[in-house]
Amino acid sequence: MRALVSEPGQRIRLADVALPRRPRECLIRVRLAGICGTDLQILQGYAAFAGIPGHEFVGVVEEVASRDDERWLGQRVVGEINVGCGTCDWCSGGVKEHCQDRTVLGIRARSGAFAEFVSLPASNLVPVPGDMADDVAVFAEPAAAACRILGQIALPSDIRVAVVGDGRLGLLVTQVLLRAPSRVTLFGRHPEKLAVARGLGIADTHTGVRAEFDRSFDVVVDVTGRPSGFADAVRLVRPRGTVVLKSTFHDHDGPALSPVVVGEITVVGSRCGPVRPALALLSSGTVRVEPLIDRILPLDAFEEAFAAARTSLKVLFRPGEEG
Amino acid sequence: MRALVSEPGQRIRLADVALPRRPRECLIRVRLAGICGTDLQILQGYAAFAGIPGHEFVGVVEEVASRDDERWLGQRVVGEINVGCGTCDWCSGGVKEHCQDRTVLGIRARSGAFAEFVSLPASNLVPVPGDMADDVAVFAEPAAAACRILGQIALPSDIRVAVVGDGRLGLLVTQVLLRAPSRVTLFGRHPEKLAVARGLGIADTHTGVRAEFDRSFDVVVDVTGRPSGFADAVRLVRPRGTVVLKSTFHDHDGPALSPVVVGEITVVGSRCGPVRPALALLSSGTVRVEPLIDRILPLDAFEEAFAAARTSLKVLFRPGEEG
Repeated sequence: MRALVSEPGQRIRLADVALPRRPRECLIRVRLAGICGTDLQILQGYAAFAGIPGHEFVGVVEEVASRDDERWLGQRVVGEINVGCGTCDWCSGGVKEHCQDRTVLGIRARSGAFAEFVSLPASNLVPVPGDMADDVAVFAEPAAAACRILGQIALPSDIRVAVVGDGRLGLLVTQVLLRAPSRVTLFGRHPEKLAVARGLGIADTHTGVRAEFDRSFDVVVDVTGRPSGFADAVRLVRPRGTVVLKSTFHDHDGPALSPVVVGEITVVGSRCGPVRPALALLSSGTVRVEPLIDRILPLDAFEEAFAAARTSLKVLFRPGEEG
Repeated sequence: MRALVSEPGQRIRLADVALPRRPRECLIRVRLAGICGTDLQILQGYAAFAGIPGHEFVGVVEEVASRDDERWLGQRVVGEINVGCGTCDWCSGGVKEHCQDRTVLGIRARSGAFAEFVSLPASNLVPVPGDMADDVAVFAEPAAAACRILGQIALPSDIRVAVVGDGRLGLLVTQVLLRAPSRVTLFGRHPEKLAVARGLGIADTHTGVRAEFDRSFDVVVDVTGRPSGFADAVRLVRPRGTVVLKSTFHDHDGPALSPVVVGEITVVGSRCGPVRPALALLSSGTVRVEPLIDRILPLDAFEEAFAAARTSLKVLFRPGEEG
């Protein structure tokens, strides 16, 4: 099959590779795959990943490994991206995303979705509602990551919440959070992305973080993917408030942490989330994604795709198509 | 009076300065003052503090500003180091350590205790039990900082707790935490300090952080004062565990935060704590401090004092004494 292959220290390339068949797993033909900030970080060396990146996809199951899984054949699916060992305490408790021996689609020891096919266990698959477009379903994984925050912190209706970062994940996080408190303030750096945000019903947007907002929020979510975003979040949050950290980046040094101590701030790391609730939010239109899509490209246009993904909101691959 | 004066970019010096009289405050003759890691950071530019450093002290009240405060005259006292504006929401709620306009003894816009006298409002003073030695009472402030952790996180008896950092604050924190869980593991880098720790009843000590301990603790407290200590804490804590951050340091860059996101770790900044419970722990002998004291020096031996404080546990000044 054709796939994009990334290796640390080398430029990503299009290659013909073997099908990613794994024992006891399903083979899924990828219909669409989304480029995420983490993919751009991986291209710069984050997580020292070697292989096929990509962890946001929607596809159709083409092969299964057992009679039990036959009901998946032909199903349109999205997937949970963590595959655990199945036996450790974390896996037994249903939290395979913290299994020490996990693989992660396109991020850790598992071929990802910038390819014609991916492999995942049936237990990782979630069926897509029949009336949901592919270019909505492909947002299931990042929308799930946004939903994760709801499982980590309480959000009463009078809480003051800010999101720092007007990128693809920032706009999903803000939409998800707007379900709970009456108001969420979005800080960004890109007037055109903030305009998209307002089109999505995010009324309170600001270009840049100004001193008048310092210490003004109970909860601030950093989805910038940059150390300076964390510093902005720390100045926006009130003493003893909470900063939710969504950003991972390839960097040896991070932001200074003394302000976290002085303000007695709680920082909560937040990663993958539940896919089914995310699909429900996408299905109901509570979270809208169409305005985020900048372009849909074949795999061989990967250079254009990654360049566009660095500045625009969401770029999708359609691996079945040639450019 | 004689005092040590620090200014950013200059070497600290002994000087004759005016008494630190402030309206509506008490004047306290300093009997002993302790050197803390934060003081050493201030000498390197942390907090951009200009003035007399020092925030750990025991002294005797010599002047008061009103008849209401006369009962303090002659009292031996320690002090809460944050002085708030008295009118903001934080001060009204009794949390003056987060008042935006606060001063902090020897740290922020307020002359500190490396001097013959300090000034504090009577409301900041706490009487020292008559039978407590000065060189025990002078630990009230750092012991309070250790106690702060008990107010921030739950510590059931079966919780696995580690402390990273075998310095002066690390040994206080470990002793305070040992009251709650049945066992606290202390990681350090200095065999001689870990030997002091074992003499204090801290049985489980280790030189260096080894891979066998990775992901082994529910709660890890970083009191190293170094970015690498935070990185050690993050690898020791289990996924979704808690790192309590006590370290502040003068640094533009901090440790990488991606592992916090990947492990969904909660980081809790922790600063000043309650002085009265700390005095009670010192009084009962639950927290023992005598073995921490390396030497007691007059102010004019400040070069020897700060040099010693960089490598030993606790160095005290006795400002009333000349060298």
